[in-house]
Amino acid sequence: MKKLSRRAFNTTVGKGIGAAALMTPLTWAYGSPNTHKSQKKLGMALVGLGSYSTYQLAPALQDTQFCKLSGIVTGTPKKEVQWMQQYGIPKESVYNYDNFDDIANNDTIDIVYVVLPNSMHADFCIRAAKAGKHVICEKPMAMNVAECDAIIDACQEAGVKLSVGYRLHSEPYTQEVKRMVSEKTFGNVKYLSADAAYNSRGNPDQWRLNKALSGGGALMNMGVYAIQSAIYGTGENPTSVTAQEFSTRPEYFKDTDETVTAQFEFPSGAVANIFTSHNVNANRLYASCDRGWFELNPANHYGPLRGSTSSGRTIEFPHERQQKLQMDDFASHILSGTPNKVPGAMGKRDMIIVEAIYKSIAEGNVKIPLEFAPMYGFGE
Amino acid sequence: MKKLSRRAFNTTVGKGIGAAALMTPLTWAYGSPNTHKSQKKLGMALVGLGSYSTYQLAPALQDTQFCKLSGIVTGTPKKEVQWMQQYGIPKESVYNYDNFDDIANNDTIDIVYVVLPNSMHADFCIRAAKAGKHVICEKPMAMNVAECDAIIDACQEAGVKLSVGYRLHSEPYTQEVKRMVSEKTFGNVKYLSADAAYNSRGNPDQWRLNKALSGGGALMNMGVYAIQSAIYGTGENPTSVTAQEFSTRPEYFKDTDETVTAQFEFPSGAVANIFTSHNVNANRLYASCDRGWFELNPANHYGPLRGSTSSGRTIEFPHERQQKLQMDDFASHILSGTPNKVPGAMGKRDMIIVEAIYKSIAEGNVKIPLEFAPMYGFGE
Repeated sequence: MKKLSRRAFNTTVGKGIGAAALMTPLTWAYGSPNTHKSQKKLGMALVGLGSYSTYQLAPALQDTQFCKLSGIVTGTPKKEVQWMQQYGIPKESVYNYDNFDDIANNDTIDIVYVVLPNSMHADFCIRAAKAGKHVICEKPMAMNVAECDAIIDACQEAGVKLSVGYRLHSEPYTQEVKRMVSEKTFGNVKYLSADAAYNSRGNPDQWRLNKALSGGGALMNMGVYAIQSAIYGTGENPTSVTAQEFSTRPEYFKDTDETVTAQFEFPSGAVANIFTSHNVNANRLYASCDRGWFELNPANHYGPLRGSTSSGRTIEFPHERQQKLQMDDFASHILSGTPNKVPGAMGKRDMIIVEAIYKSIAEGNVKIPLEFAPMYGFGE
Repeated sequence: MKKLSRRAFNTTVGKGIGAAALMTPLTWAYGSPNTHKSQKKLGMALVGLGSYSTYQLAPALQDTQFCKLSGIVTGTPKKEVQWMQQYGIPKESVYNYDNFDDIANNDTIDIVYVVLPNSMHADFCIRAAKAGKHVICEKPMAMNVAECDAIIDACQEAGVKLSVGYRLHSEPYTQEVKRMVSEKTFGNVKYLSADAAYNSRGNPDQWRLNKALSGGGALMNMGVYAIQSAIYGTGENPTSVTAQEFSTRPEYFKDTDETVTAQFEFPSGAVANIFTSHNVNANRLYASCDRGWFELNPANHYGPLRGSTSSGRTIEFPHERQQKLQMDDFASHILSGTPNKVPGAMGKRDMIIVEAIYKSIAEGNVKIPLEFAPMYGFGE
């Protein structure tokens, strides 16, 4: 793996990106495609074979350079057979939730990626760490800050690496946002607006709508992307927050938040205004700076993303599966000591913010007496 | 003026606009350019010759079809001479704030446009009405709702027409937004985001920064555009609001609000998240609907504006001075009975919302203890 440090620039990633951005850790860790075959690949086990594992992670693991799909953990026997056939996984690398701890004896598995409902993150991350496996914990990291601490502590005690499933830290649009913020391309960011939302109309029994399994609704799911946008879009951690909750479909969102808005203050004085929802589609990041602005729309879905700036530039990069880049970055961290772009403490930080937002959601709405007012200009 | 109703479509306004939009009241009132000379024009007096009168209204009045600059009211003798020379205004149509009421005897003046600091709106609008003149009151309408009522009552008693200086209701981008909302081009609007803000770095003694003259800061000035966007961008009046205030330059914004965010709920369940500031540049309207989105950026400055939609359409119209369209619309209302696009009650409605926002700004921020957290991914 020593070769890694000499393979600096993957030019296929860099179309339209400045030279300075090319030298960031983003591309630093990637080998060029023709060295693909010669790499040792870390073995990864996916824990939980829901839609994210099925349609995103497993396909991504067919393209990764530094890791590969080596095992599965599922509570559904039918899936065992399907996945073994489709991905050539040997029977001895297939686990269920009861015998999961036996994974400690499986040398073909180096990393465990926990893709279970949020309520099961802490349990399985801690068990994975105790089994001596490096851990990726899907976002949000856990049900609360205390569970984040427990995961972090367990990984530290076991001497294994820990990452959270924030795929955007490895893809070029988010890297470009961070570059513009860091290099003050348009001066300091003074206002950040982020929307992370989708319209949920699926199975009302899905675990995301069950607070005991999810810990919360839109805020715990898409909200963490908006929180992340507010942070990497300003280059600061927020110091205070106000937040509001909105509900229009209580029959569907029985015990999880449907829509949340929040406003952050940052040490520089920057302000962020975020919106997250399971009732609306919106996927944007906009930053107004001293001398211009930049935006991504879409900003945080699986891509392709797209951006523009006040200087007339269109931000556009070749599309690669974000999860491929994310998992390779973590494998490279383990193999070569490149930076851990998403340490567990980042997941904990965001959970602190989530808890602060829930705390600040209050019942202080002010009624506006507008019964007398028609909709001026709408047909009267 | 009977001819007006037969001159239906001004094709120069309609490039790129659908047939349905062409038939809205927007273009209904305008004659074609070659009829310009034959129109009787209403005489307008500008009260207050600050930068808005100097650089926007007076130039616009050189192009209007249904009104013209006939008089001025100023407290600065030097400006009297300048304006008389530049615009050929006769001495007998020049007033100061003391002899203003004599305007009642001036038959060449039909409309008085009050462009004074907010604290003087009510006084001069009421005096104009008592002088028998139609009134345009610059935005925000007044210092508070009570003053709005006094203006509305005075105009009603005097039997004169009243409008507020909302220029966007006469320009095509805002008309197009209203059309997409009304016709549900993308279904119902579920989320509206509006930014109306600019970075104020001018004379710290300007009246906008003096609460006794302005009644408030960003919210009273740019904020009403964001409020308006929230309303015409959803097609509804809000029923409740939460709001927050942010301050970073208290030495400059000594007694007026620097930055305000607010969240509206609407009867349909739609949510709006607005941002206004005198410390940041931002000028946007975005609406997420059942089946897509539309946006304007810029959305509310003097233009040219620009927009786009989720269907890939660029919203673009030939640029005309918004104030020209606005003043002609009001003159046409007086002359021909076309709709008053901005009645006084609309200005009062917005002042009710402004008062609700100030009421809801509370001190409930929740601190976020993030001292331990570095800026992950920023050079560590």
